Amino acid sequence: MTSTADIIKFMETDFPQCNSVIERTGNGGATVRHHIGSEELRPGGTVSGPVMMAVADIALYAAILGEIGIVPLAVTTSLNVNFLRKPSAQRDIIGVCTLMKVGRSLAVGEVNLYSEGDERPVAHAVGTYSIPPGQSPEI
Amino acid sequence: MTSTADIIKFMETDFPQCNSVIERTGNGGATVRHHIGSEELRPGGTVSGPVMMAVADIALYAAILGEIGIVPLAVTTSLNVNFLRKPSAQRDIIGVCTLMKVGRSLAVGEVNLYSEGDERPVAHAVGTYSIPPGQSPEI
Amino acid sequence: MTSTADIIKFMETDFPQCNSVIERTGNGGATVRHHIGSEELRPGGTVSGPVMMAVADIALYAAILGEIGIVPLAVTTSLNVNFLRKPSAQRDIIGVCTLMKVGRSLAVGEVNLYSEGDERPVAHAVGTYSIPPGQSPEI
Amino acid sequence: MTSTADIIKFMETDFPQCNSVIERTGNGGATVRHHIGSEELRPGGTVSGPVMMAVADIALYAAILGEIGIVPLAVTTSLNVNFLRKPSAQRDIIGVCTLMKVGRSLAVGEVNLYSEGDERPVAHAVGTYSIPPGQSPEI
Repeated sequence: MTSTADIIKFMETDFPQCNSVIERTGNGGATVRHHIGSEELRPGGTVSGPVMMAVADIALYAAILGEIGIVPLAVTTSLNVNFLRKPSAQRDIIGVCTLMKVGRSLAVGEVNLYSEGDERPVAHAVGTYSIPPGQSPEI
Repeated sequence: MTSTADIIKFMETDFPQCNSVIERTGNGGATVRHHIGSEELRPGGTVSGPVMMAVADIALYAAILGEIGIVPLAVTTSLNVNFLRKPSAQRDIIGVCTLMKVGRSLAVGEVNLYSEGDERPVAHAVGTYSIPPGQSPEI
Repeated sequence: MTSTADIIKFMETDFPQCNSVIERTGNGGATVRHHIGSEELRPGGTVSGPVMMAVADIALYAAILGEIGIVPLAVTTSLNVNFLRKPSAQRDIIGVCTLMKVGRSLAVGEVNLYSEGDERPVAHAVGTYSIPPGQSPEI
Repeated sequence: MTSTADIIKFMETDFPQCNSVIERTGNGGATVRHHIGSEELRPGGTVSGPVMMAVADIALYAAILGEIGIVPLAVTTSLNVNFLRKPSAQRDIIGVCTLMKVGRSLAVGEVNLYSEGDERPVAHAVGTYSIPPGQSPEI
């Protein structure tokens, strides 16, 4: 397992435009936080869908790196998002990923997205990453 | 049908943070363009997944507004994206939406995403929007 | 809440061709069991994908009926399935549904599918049902 | 390319329980037909969702075999289905698959499902198959 600190450092250097903060990785999952400012909102005073999709994608990536190590070229092959409730415009979005499979060439996980402080998810995502050959311990 | 000019104007005033340009709406579809700069890239010199998801979402929204008129509170309820090929870091992303259903309460469409100049899609999305009661002509 | 016995009885009379057995409903979820015989298998000695999709669909339906009562015309609007591991040809498939949202017009839930006796899911599904107007308590 | 006759023969011997008829394969696609009888219906006089998912899955499989040859162990890794309109209880379901990518290890395609004689799709699916190593010409 790669440490959370190593993943945070990698994200800062290789994904400087990523605004999500990785709070936890390991044990087949990850938690990320995304601060919501005016740029993340859309009409109706709610968080835009693409912001939530980006948080889901980063949470999956962080969780996978926590299992297979720093593999920059792991890439998303599919992401399916269901939007469940109107997120709060005043609260951070928290993404909690749980991996369901880390195979030789594919990793699959789900992400629940929350407005901080509310236990009902605002969105739910399932995503698949492709892992370059020879990089997975195949848990 | 609402004119493309009206939709462009609405997007500029209500979605100022949206960087996609709407090029066409009407006839059950829409085309949008997204300029790719350094902010849209990720390791490996490719376009980040969330950028493509955002383009797909906007293409769907523009296509739906073209059918039901300016309904700001139409919201995405699901989006499923498959990433097919590595997009070019030097070319705009073009999203071409075709609506499959515009019902009373739900609209469903698909979006093919291209690196400009290549006819093979780099990604494909299917999304669903929820339409507030009484706003859809139900085509 | 509708009792599990009522839902089982409804399924037997209205879905006589359904081979899944409902074992539990209520508390925002459901568990169903599907016996695996030769008709459910495909080359490689594994359970066919459509069988698992059918189990996921029934688990969702049973969970929703448990919340909103016997509403025969609730219909699936989307189902997204990821196949994770090769199911056993010798064991029943167990589908465990957890609802994520029961709104006025849409209900969304996830289903983990297992080969009985193995705690790692063989597949995972997320599905959406449309609820006819006036039928949902909107939990 | 493998001939349609070879694929039909393979399906008859290896998938005897499959009730869909393959009508066309090749050129990156396939068409299949599924006869609708009382077993395929559900309350409300409509075709059950799992039947349509099975047709989508077979159409994808047939299209992929048409490109990579008879590879029995190609398996579905994901399937996303949106149900768009109520299918006719009196008409065959026709599934028309178009492949979007046939890579080294993954193939992705979409399937439009129709009630025969109506040009508006009743459902739309996007699916991914995993191809065993060394079996794909990678088109």
